[in-house]
Amino acid sequence: MIKSINSPPKLNVQTWINTEEELSLEKLKGKVVVIYVFQMLCPSCILNSIPQARRVSALFPKDDLAVIGLHSVFEHHDAMTEVSLKAFLHEFKVSFPVAIDMPSKNKGGRIPQTLDAYQLEGTPSIIVIDRQGSLRKVKLGHLDDLTLGAELMSLIREEI
Amino acid sequence: MIKSINSPPKLNVQTWINTEEELSLEKLKGKVVVIYVFQMLCPSCILNSIPQARRVSALFPKDDLAVIGLHSVFEHHDAMTEVSLKAFLHEFKVSFPVAIDMPSKNKGGRIPQTLDAYQLEGTPSIIVIDRQGSLRKVKLGHLDDLTLGAELMSLIREEI
Amino acid sequence: MIKSINSPPKLNVQTWINTEEELSLEKLKGKVVVIYVFQMLCPSCILNSIPQARRVSALFPKDDLAVIGLHSVFEHHDAMTEVSLKAFLHEFKVSFPVAIDMPSKNKGGRIPQTLDAYQLEGTPSIIVIDRQGSLRKVKLGHLDDLTLGAELMSLIREEI
Amino acid sequence: MIKSINSPPKLNVQTWINTEEELSLEKLKGKVVVIYVFQMLCPSCILNSIPQARRVSALFPKDDLAVIGLHSVFEHHDAMTEVSLKAFLHEFKVSFPVAIDMPSKNKGGRIPQTLDAYQLEGTPSIIVIDRQGSLRKVKLGHLDDLTLGAELMSLIREEI
Repeated sequence: MIKSINSPPKLNVQTWINTEEELSLEKLKGKVVVIYVFQMLCPSCILNSIPQARRVSALFPKDDLAVIGLHSVFEHHDAMTEVSLKAFLHEFKVSFPVAIDMPSKNKGGRIPQTLDAYQLEGTPSIIVIDRQGSLRKVKLGHLDDLTLGAELMSLIREEI
Repeated sequence: MIKSINSPPKLNVQTWINTEEELSLEKLKGKVVVIYVFQMLCPSCILNSIPQARRVSALFPKDDLAVIGLHSVFEHHDAMTEVSLKAFLHEFKVSFPVAIDMPSKNKGGRIPQTLDAYQLEGTPSIIVIDRQGSLRKVKLGHLDDLTLGAELMSLIREEI
Repeated sequence: MIKSINSPPKLNVQTWINTEEELSLEKLKGKVVVIYVFQMLCPSCILNSIPQARRVSALFPKDDLAVIGLHSVFEHHDAMTEVSLKAFLHEFKVSFPVAIDMPSKNKGGRIPQTLDAYQLEGTPSIIVIDRQGSLRKVKLGHLDDLTLGAELMSLIREEI
Repeated sequence: MIKSINSPPKLNVQTWINTEEELSLEKLKGKVVVIYVFQMLCPSCILNSIPQARRVSALFPKDDLAVIGLHSVFEHHDAMTEVSLKAFLHEFKVSFPVAIDMPSKNKGGRIPQTLDAYQLEGTPSIIVIDRQGSLRKVKLGHLDDLTLGAELMSLIREEI
């Protein structure tokens, strides 16, 4: 059944930042959702993804599209704690909601649960979910702005 | 009547380059048309607009969107002749169609006719026409890639 | 006496990273010394200063010039601990010696001691000391590469 | 004899622009001379070399260092005439002296004489001559600013 193939794993979140209520893909149905998977000390995340995420968040109306950061730490865990992340978000002027990925259930496991569920191989990665809640893109690395702008608008303009 | 307000002036062209047949807004109806108005020795055209025009031309399918360069020289006329323009297009790998704007009818007039008809104030400028042939944007300066990608896709997705 | 005016405050260091022996301005006499004062979560430090410090370190022979990072945290102290800094240096491929500035003696004081001694107003800042050990530049912000390359070589070529 | 090896070919110039008197390497002895060999429609010249040449010209005192542009056209000759070059220099705010390389003596020859004498393989190229008039660098392509700043200051500081 195609729908089940396209059904994205739920966001398994330890802590939400920059949002009063906890978010979920279920609650965001009706909007395009763009999830930037990052680590605060990953150079390409800092140089490319976070600035782009801010531009996407600033450009599209909140009713059409939601930007979420997903902080999925799989190395240097002691170096990228919640307190460090909050300072990072403040200094880099990130105002969109950021979820801290739930740590592994396995004792000593390094891969957080949402990263694992999406079978992501590293950061930065980008996940895009359409207005009906179907998974449309999971990509390691960076997308150029022109392509991303066109792809997101195409999803916004889709009939539900 | 709104339609007449939005009706773009025709392209008044001296010479077409990079196309076997002469183009016109009439012939391009059904596609979104993006016109990059430039001068080959305008620094911001070289640094910003021409590279973006190449990206737009490479990204969108030819059936959905047409990119056209409009070479509208209003200064240094002797320096930006057709032979110089052709070398410029070759060196900067411009393969989309380029129109040389028709020189002014007035003796000694510096402003070419299409530039004048669109009341443009300089280069680079961008003109966007929708699939029905209505004028949707006339803007002096440069648009960022994310915004442009979204705007063009929005026009492509419009019902005719 | 001019010499005392130009005499730089000593580096008051809590911990040295990327060096087997503790460094000091005294030990480095005979070389030009460039000190990049930074915080690991300061955006301009990450985008501009640290990359330039790596270029300077790679270009000049170690016998002529020493590059030192000085991590002088004056805000978000809990977010920029030694363990976080070490991960940052690893991820951003910083291999030159980095000193962690000694915290304030005053209970609750936010300004570390070396930053205070040099009367620096923020990060990034750059300090340059000549081969005789005299202070030649203390500057808040970023210097362009061409100017810096020329200034450092000028100091290297000075007679002692 | 080393001196003859290092002795640079003379500048064989058709026309000087941006200077009241004709220049020559002989007249410039005592200064470091940096020659940017370019073509006005060469993309890397426009994007990299000309902006750097302007920075070098602005940074170093005129008594220490002279920047010269050498317009050495070896393709698209009709597209890069003197009138086009002058408009280019105006638009790109080039105020340092520019020499138009002397065309080939051979009928139909494409390689201008100074380019040929220095055995240069293309544009952009950079030629550096020390204060004594010896050739110190002939390089195809672009040098980074930090390296160039250091190299030029090293030559300025050399004893004559």
